[in-house]
Amino acid sequence: MEPIRIAVVGVGKIARDQHLPAIAGTQAFSLAATVSPHDPGPKGVPHLASLEELLEKGPAIDAVALCTPPQVRYGLAVQALKRGIHVFLEKPPGATLSEVVALRERADKVGVTLFASWHSRFAAGVAPARAWLAERKIEKVSIVWREDVRVWHPGQAWIWEPGGLGVFDPGINALSILTHILPRPVFLKAATLSLPENRAAPIAADLSMCDTGGAKIHMDLDWRQTGPQSWDIVVETDAGTLKLSQGGAVLSTPSGTEHNEDLEYPGLYSRFANLIRGGRSDVDMDPFRLVADAFLRGRRETVAAFND
Amino acid sequence: MEPIRIAVVGVGKIARDQHLPAIAGTQAFSLAATVSPHDPGPKGVPHLASLEELLEKGPAIDAVALCTPPQVRYGLAVQALKRGIHVFLEKPPGATLSEVVALRERADKVGVTLFASWHSRFAAGVAPARAWLAERKIEKVSIVWREDVRVWHPGQAWIWEPGGLGVFDPGINALSILTHILPRPVFLKAATLSLPENRAAPIAADLSMCDTGGAKIHMDLDWRQTGPQSWDIVVETDAGTLKLSQGGAVLSTPSGTEHNEDLEYPGLYSRFANLIRGGRSDVDMDPFRLVADAFLRGRRETVAAFND
Repeated sequence: MEPIRIAVVGVGKIARDQHLPAIAGTQAFSLAATVSPHDPGPKGVPHLASLEELLEKGPAIDAVALCTPPQVRYGLAVQALKRGIHVFLEKPPGATLSEVVALRERADKVGVTLFASWHSRFAAGVAPARAWLAERKIEKVSIVWREDVRVWHPGQAWIWEPGGLGVFDPGINALSILTHILPRPVFLKAATLSLPENRAAPIAADLSMCDTGGAKIHMDLDWRQTGPQSWDIVVETDAGTLKLSQGGAVLSTPSGTEHNEDLEYPGLYSRFANLIRGGRSDVDMDPFRLVADAFLRGRRETVAAFND
Repeated sequence: MEPIRIAVVGVGKIARDQHLPAIAGTQAFSLAATVSPHDPGPKGVPHLASLEELLEKGPAIDAVALCTPPQVRYGLAVQALKRGIHVFLEKPPGATLSEVVALRERADKVGVTLFASWHSRFAAGVAPARAWLAERKIEKVSIVWREDVRVWHPGQAWIWEPGGLGVFDPGINALSILTHILPRPVFLKAATLSLPENRAAPIAADLSMCDTGGAKIHMDLDWRQTGPQSWDIVVETDAGTLKLSQGGAVLSTPSGTEHNEDLEYPGLYSRFANLIRGGRSDVDMDPFRLVADAFLRGRRETVAAFND
């Protein structure tokens, strides 16, 4: 099979750290171009300043991976879908739920693949965790997601703007795992969002959720962690405790601990290729809907100013 | 056909003003009971302090109308659905999107009717407005929804709490009309929410939206209006201007103005009876999703304290 010709749009940290290496490492895709008004892509690959220019002048492409900030993804995705080009959306899939729903309707109408990606679902421990939990009674879940924003999002102003989600940018990764491994639907009961006095998005959040079986789920999100970083999900069940740590890479159950190779982005690109070959889309809104619910229902408190 | 035996749960302003008269005015339903810890229902009808008590002691019911504040609706709806009792949800259908999605899944699983009602869609001018717009090119929409909260929500503390929506409690009515009459999906571009310094929910909001055809949609919501009240939607099209005023009751198009009898709640109950008879549910999330998007993406500003 010919590789799928893909352009990476938005050549920031996530594109360089994850997308370009994953594309280089698979025969399913070939990197046809990179697009960014400022950052150049890898040498020897056509580079254009805008998607518009790429679509006008070529080279020809079959797919795009949108790695820009979420606030501009909708417009880019529409340009691609109009030309019959398949679209890979980095997470979160947009700046609002309604624009993602509108995109999905458009993709379905024109028969083009739209993939709302959740990379953490491809962490090594997640699929076996899901399988293990499928047969258990879930009693209680505790999520602790504490990291240092200065390390992981240095100087990213967009992340603090409306539509940028703040601490839910990493937090949505935990929610994408949670909604994937629990056998029942999850919903939000209450939330507190902590907003720095000089920012529009939260730097920390405390969420109380539950599943439809009554299991209590607590989530502690914080971007002010300066010591050891935590990305842990602990699930108490009738058959003992399951723990996913290091963002889903390490799985512990009563029968032992597994630490497999981390293949999140290779997993995503393999999934994207399968969706394209099968003529299907995959747009799961559950993690993003929970974030919107936290903003909708959450109580806000003002905390100390944050400066990069 | 035997009438459907219904209990009204939550006997506050909306139940007394709208639900009880609509049920009294139709042969499709008979009022079997009212439920409220404080407010008694009409004389001669069994009254219970809680839904739990009703389900234990009777009288037997086929359906419930949940007219409580949205924060407690999910738990009540689950109790009813578990017993195979059909559920009519006042708007908004819940305190979060995810709990409504979970309810819908549960209703589908047990084959019981769940109806997320949007009463403004049954205002007299809305159906003809939808038909008229179906064939037009939409250019621009302007919504002005300005009312006096002291008149319409006197002393309703829950409406200012997280999950209570503030000015979006009436604003969601406008959004329910908008998403029903426009032929294309609508999404939110930007929003400003004005929060009184002593309240958790907005007293005013300014929304910029658009449809997938590029029509610009502006919405001005305000609860501080003390003079004439406004509930107007103006749609500019390639065939002239359509105006819905008085909350959808009055329709003006280039060919004239129609003012028909207002039958919102009778229309809702007729729809609910049809859904039950047909074994179907109707849970349209579009209006609520737009509100969540405004909370998710909106910029917040603090305004003067509000006291009842």
